[in-house]
Amino acid sequence: MIKTDILIIGAGPTGLFAVFEAGLLKLKCHLIDALPQAGGQCSEIYPKKPIYDIPGFPEVLAGDLVDNLMEQIKSFQPGFTLGERAETIKKLDDGTFVVTTNKGTEHNAPIVAIAGGLGSFEPRKPLLDNLSKFEDNGIAYMIKDPEVYRDKKVVIAGGGDSALDWSIFLSDVASQVTLVHRRNEFRGALDSVEKVQELKNQGKINLITPAEIIALNGDDKLESVLIRKISDAKEEVTLEVDNFIPLFGLSPKLGPIGDWGLDIEKNAIKVDTFDYQTNIPGIYAIGDVNTYPGKLKLILCGFHEATLMCQSAFQKIYPDKKYVMKYTTVGGVSGFDGTKKEAPKAVIKAIE
Amino acid sequence: MIKTDILIIGAGPTGLFAVFEAGLLKLKCHLIDALPQAGGQCSEIYPKKPIYDIPGFPEVLAGDLVDNLMEQIKSFQPGFTLGERAETIKKLDDGTFVVTTNKGTEHNAPIVAIAGGLGSFEPRKPLLDNLSKFEDNGIAYMIKDPEVYRDKKVVIAGGGDSALDWSIFLSDVASQVTLVHRRNEFRGALDSVEKVQELKNQGKINLITPAEIIALNGDDKLESVLIRKISDAKEEVTLEVDNFIPLFGLSPKLGPIGDWGLDIEKNAIKVDTFDYQTNIPGIYAIGDVNTYPGKLKLILCGFHEATLMCQSAFQKIYPDKKYVMKYTTVGGVSGFDGTKKEAPKAVIKAIE
Repeated sequence: MIKTDILIIGAGPTGLFAVFEAGLLKLKCHLIDALPQAGGQCSEIYPKKPIYDIPGFPEVLAGDLVDNLMEQIKSFQPGFTLGERAETIKKLDDGTFVVTTNKGTEHNAPIVAIAGGLGSFEPRKPLLDNLSKFEDNGIAYMIKDPEVYRDKKVVIAGGGDSALDWSIFLSDVASQVTLVHRRNEFRGALDSVEKVQELKNQGKINLITPAEIIALNGDDKLESVLIRKISDAKEEVTLEVDNFIPLFGLSPKLGPIGDWGLDIEKNAIKVDTFDYQTNIPGIYAIGDVNTYPGKLKLILCGFHEATLMCQSAFQKIYPDKKYVMKYTTVGGVSGFDGTKKEAPKAVIKAIE
Repeated sequence: MIKTDILIIGAGPTGLFAVFEAGLLKLKCHLIDALPQAGGQCSEIYPKKPIYDIPGFPEVLAGDLVDNLMEQIKSFQPGFTLGERAETIKKLDDGTFVVTTNKGTEHNAPIVAIAGGLGSFEPRKPLLDNLSKFEDNGIAYMIKDPEVYRDKKVVIAGGGDSALDWSIFLSDVASQVTLVHRRNEFRGALDSVEKVQELKNQGKINLITPAEIIALNGDDKLESVLIRKISDAKEEVTLEVDNFIPLFGLSPKLGPIGDWGLDIEKNAIKVDTFDYQTNIPGIYAIGDVNTYPGKLKLILCGFHEATLMCQSAFQKIYPDKKYVMKYTTVGGVSGFDGTKKEAPKAVIKAIE
């Protein structure tokens, strides 16, 4: 059982910044995220896109913002349970919560802060018979460890940046990469489209367009896929493969959190703007996942909400302690790892 | 009469960021600040101090944060009335407001956003007869233009960073710099203390400690000051000077805004967290100057408040327009100066 002070569900920018504000109050955090890495949408969907409305950054790439936040919270040593989705919650007799993921990992904390963004990002799946049978037995919707595909025969489906980028990447890893897309046209960064064209010309990527995968075959594990060309002839070809990776994008779903008994309005969790607490005391919702009158789904608003949430959490955990806020400019930042950052002190010195 | 959409009182980080959020909504802003430059406390009090709790910045000097914000809002071309204090407000029949400064500059806008921080920073003044008589006639509490002191005989009083730094700076400009302080010990950056020691040794700064200025003399303008040594002998010396600059720090005062009919609680303006509006419709208060249940006086909270304020202001100015928020990552930023910043577009291209 993982124990912490604030259990944060969702490791996007709001969840990450909460670790910092909690750390200033000497509260420890642990984050759960369904994605294989921290950063939420910023890392998974648009790491190379510039954001212009983060205060103090005339322009910052989403991926760089996440890197900065990870650096900012490093000394507060957050824990992470990544690639697992928070599934169930129960309240113990001592008033603390236990949150269990889809893989059975259990987490215990007096405070739960849902920073789930638009929900957990679930891959869009193709409609194919036997799909679930081959999941984790040859079919994957996200690439967590590219080494899994070393010297394997891989077929990727999709026409966007993920399909292009992973085809490029795996062309150096897998023994054979086939890219299948319903159209001849791809939509992505110019660089990526041109690189795939080049690799195709060199014979390093096997391109089949316009086409789609219409059947999956194999006993225990995937052995081949049936590809149909989208043309008058409807020509079909069976391709022997070890792995099939459909990259049709991710779609956000509130998911199991929707069944936790929280007040929900239009797919978002209702909170009080005093401390961004939900209708269940001890459970907070911050960032894009919450709603209140005037709510704007902006990262900068999530930062504010995370900050007020931490103050309230502190009061709940230590009802008898009076916390006096100290500015970081004055008090510095003392990490849990023993590091201390602070402004150079003024000297008091006679001039003779 | 200066006309704008949102008149912002206070050009600290919160006021500056409001310009950006207003700009995204195509609203123009003008800022008034009693200090001679933008940035509020960050520029005036601690430009070289690191801040650690701005989200996405593991560490940023206060002065750099202001520079970044100025760069971020540049294309929205804000107007500034600096070195003047907002003094009076009146409401016109058309529902708009006129705000007049202590120097008589008039500003007209349908929306007023008070982003006044802890108040306007007023210099702490020494208790001396005739002080007000010589203000602007030899006595100044802030240095707006160092050239005023070119080849003049200047006496500076104080023992902190401002007194040290301006003594150093003016030692190259004025014909004579005398630094008077009540103690032998100075409190400031090590560099500055050492530099003053060096300049004193070179005879470029005339140091008189422990001592204080006890009288001011002159007809129309300041001609000399009487300095008393703090010692048993209480020796007194008259020093001929053109200028006397007491640098005893700034102390924040809510000032004339306190008389505008706003609900005030503990020196702060009460607002509704829906849109950070005060009890007077059309007047908002954002950043450290406001108060509400759970309020934290943090820059990052001011950013959030400024953002929600702008949405509400837009609805007031254009009650019939429906604004659909567009993410800057998707829609980019279109400046009023014709510039446009946006993410590189994805291409749609066939691979053959």
